[in-house]
Amino acid sequence: MTVKAYGAHAGDQPLEAMEIIRRAPGAHDVQIDIAYCGVCHSDLHQVRSEWAGTLYPCVPGHEIVGRVSTVGADVSGFKAGDLVGVGCIVDSCQHCEDCNEGLENYCDHMVGTYNGPTPDAPGHTLGGYSRQIVVHERYVLRIRHSEAQLAAVAPLLCAGITTYSPLRHWKVGPGHKVGVVGIGGLGHMGIKLAHAMGAHVVAFTTSESKREAALALGANDVVVSRNADEMAAHAKSFDFILNTVAAPHDLNAFFALLKRDGTMTLVGAPATPHPSPQVFSLIMKRRSLAGSLIGGIPETQEMLDFCAEHGIVADIEMIRADEINEAYERMLKGDVKYRFVIDNASLAA
Amino acid sequence: MTVKAYGAHAGDQPLEAMEIIRRAPGAHDVQIDIAYCGVCHSDLHQVRSEWAGTLYPCVPGHEIVGRVSTVGADVSGFKAGDLVGVGCIVDSCQHCEDCNEGLENYCDHMVGTYNGPTPDAPGHTLGGYSRQIVVHERYVLRIRHSEAQLAAVAPLLCAGITTYSPLRHWKVGPGHKVGVVGIGGLGHMGIKLAHAMGAHVVAFTTSESKREAALALGANDVVVSRNADEMAAHAKSFDFILNTVAAPHDLNAFFALLKRDGTMTLVGAPATPHPSPQVFSLIMKRRSLAGSLIGGIPETQEMLDFCAEHGIVADIEMIRADEINEAYERMLKGDVKYRFVIDNASLAA
Ligand SMILES: [Zn+2]
Ligand SMILES: [Zn+2]
Ligand SMILES: [Zn+2]
Ligand SMILES: [Zn+2]
Repeated sequence: MTVKAYGAHAGDQPLEAMEIIRRAPGAHDVQIDIAYCGVCHSDLHQVRSEWAGTLYPCVPGHEIVGRVSTVGADVSGFKAGDLVGVGCIVDSCQHCEDCNEGLENYCDHMVGTYNGPTPDAPGHTLGGYSRQIVVHERYVLRIRHSEAQLAAVAPLLCAGITTYSPLRHWKVGPGHKVGVVGIGGLGHMGIKLAHAMGAHVVAFTTSESKREAALALGANDVVVSRNADEMAAHAKSFDFILNTVAAPHDLNAFFALLKRDGTMTLVGAPATPHPSPQVFSLIMKRRSLAGSLIGGIPETQEMLDFCAEHGIVADIEMIRADEINEAYERMLKGDVKYRFVIDNASLAA
Repeated sequence: MTVKAYGAHAGDQPLEAMEIIRRAPGAHDVQIDIAYCGVCHSDLHQVRSEWAGTLYPCVPGHEIVGRVSTVGADVSGFKAGDLVGVGCIVDSCQHCEDCNEGLENYCDHMVGTYNGPTPDAPGHTLGGYSRQIVVHERYVLRIRHSEAQLAAVAPLLCAGITTYSPLRHWKVGPGHKVGVVGIGGLGHMGIKLAHAMGAHVVAFTTSESKREAALALGANDVVVSRNADEMAAHAKSFDFILNTVAAPHDLNAFFALLKRDGTMTLVGAPATPHPSPQVFSLIMKRRSLAGSLIGGIPETQEMLDFCAEHGIVADIEMIRADEINEAYERMLKGDVKYRFVIDNASLAA
C-alpha cells in the first residue's frame, strides 16, 4: 500500500511530502487511518540526525491516533472503526522478562515507531507523519476519550506515558509533595497527571512568565528555580521530583529539595552532560537519582484509561503537515503551549 | 574526669598523646572503658582538616568497643561490665521524624562522635582514641560477640553499619546478584555481609592482586574493573551495586552492569566530583544512583546481632596509639587488610 507521508531525505534537509509503502496487514496486524500525530522533540533530534544512526528517508512521529481501517484474521481485540493509538513502540522480542512483565519499553529488542529495524521496506520503521500505519495488535492502544478530543489525546502516547510511568512507578498519590521541573510538552502532562493522582504538585520553571500557566495546569505552587530564596523555602520537602528538562542544568539544587529517601527521576537525556551531581547530597538523606523511559504497553493503556476517566488531554496547537519545519523552529524556542499536533488529513492535499 | 587520649592540636600536626575531660555520667549516660577503636578514613580527613570546620584539639575515632564502667541512675538497659559499642553518632534531636523512625543518622541535628557540638568541654565532641567515653544510652550498642572477638568487632560500628544499612534498605538477599566496588575497610565488610545475607556477590577491584583475597572474604566472583571484557561479561546482570570507592571514578561502567530497576548506592563522597554520569544509561533501564549514610541506632544493633549470629567480624591489624600517624600513611596507600584497630590500653603507657 502506498501512503502519503511527510519526512526528510537527509539530516540537513527540510521535511517534505513523500510517499512510503506500508505492508499488507498480517494475521496479527491492525491497519490504522491516522487522524493526528503529535510532534515530539525526539522527532526533531532524529530527523535532523542529531542522534547517531538516523536512516533516510526518515518519517518521524510516535504520538499517533486514528481509526482502525482493517484488522488481520487473528486480531480479536480491535475491529474496523475503533479509535486507537500507537506510541513509541511498534515491536519487541515478546518473550524476554521485560516483555513478559509488560515493560516492552525496556526490552533490548524494542523497535521504535520510526528508525527501528523492520523487514518492511525500506528496512527501517516509518512513523506517524503519514496517512496510514500497520502495527501488530500488541502495540495498539484503545482510546476511550470522545472523538472530539482525539487530536489532544495524541500527545498522551509519548508525553503522557513518559510522565505517567515514573509517577506510578514511584507511587505518587495523595499526601505526596511532587515537583515537576520544566513546563513544556512533557512537564505540562506531568503536572496534570500528578494533580489527578492526588499529589500536592509544585511546578519548577526558569521563567516567571509561566507562573500563571502552571497554576492553570493544576500546580498547587510554582517556583522560579533561578530564585534561590524560593528554592530554599522548599528544602527537604519533596517526596518525588519529575525532571523533564533535557538541557544540562544543576541537579544539586533539586536534590536539596528532596526529603530523606526522596527520588528525582529524569526523563530527558541531555546532549552534553549535566554538571556532575554532588554525591554528598545523595548520601546525606539517602536520596536517589533515577531515569525512566516512556512506559510499557499495558501501562500505556492504563494511562489512556486514567486520562479518559479524569478528562485529561494535552494542550495542543494544531498544524498542517506542511507547517512542520516552522513548528520545529518554534519548538526549539519553547514557543508552543504545549504540543504541536499534525492534522494528518492535511497530507491528502 | 581526666582521660588519656590521642589527637591533634592542628591540621598540619601529627597526632600525639593528650589529656581530655569527660563529663560525669548523667541520669541517662553510660560510661565506657574503651578497649579498642577502629581507624576510619573519616578520622584522617577530619583530623587533618581536609573537611571544613575541624575543631581542635581533635580526637578522632568512631568505631568504639569496650566495657561499661558506670551507668546513670535512669539507665536500665546497661550495667557495669557489659560489652558495648559506640559508632558515629552520640546524640540527635530525639524527636524528629528521622529519630522517631530510628534513623538518627539522617536527623538534621545528629551529633557525630567527634567534632560535633556539645555543652561538654571543650565544646565539641571527642572520639574514641581515648580511654573512656560517656554516651547517652540511646546511642550505646550491645555486643553479643565473644570478648576474644572484641577488637575485630570495633570496625562494625562504622564500616559494618555503613555497608549493612544500604544492603538491607535495598533488600539484598537470596537470588540477588550484588556487586561490591572497592575492597578496603568498607568493601571487605560489604562482601562479608552481602554473602551472609545469601546474595551472589561479585567484588570489583582495580587490582588483580586482590582477586584471591576477595574470594576468601566470601565473594563468588571477582572482576578487575579496568578489564573491559570482564566488565562486559556482567552487563545488565546486577540487582544492586554497593560502591565504596570515594575516589572519583567512572560510574557509567557500573551502571551498565545493572539490570532494569537496579540501583547503585554510593557510601563515599569524593573530594572532587566523579565524572558526570550518563543520564541515558539511567533512563534506558530505569536505573538509580543513590547514596547512603552510616545507619540508624536500631539498625546498628540489628547489624551487630546479625554479625554475632553469623560469626562476622572485620579483618584487622592491631596497632598501639603511638603508631597512628604511621597507620594513616599506610591507610592512604591502601596498605592494610582491612582495618587498623587501636589497642586503647596502649594509651595508658
Ligand atoms: Zn516522544
Ligand atoms: Zn523483550
Ligand atoms: Zn567511619
Ligand atoms: Zn532528630
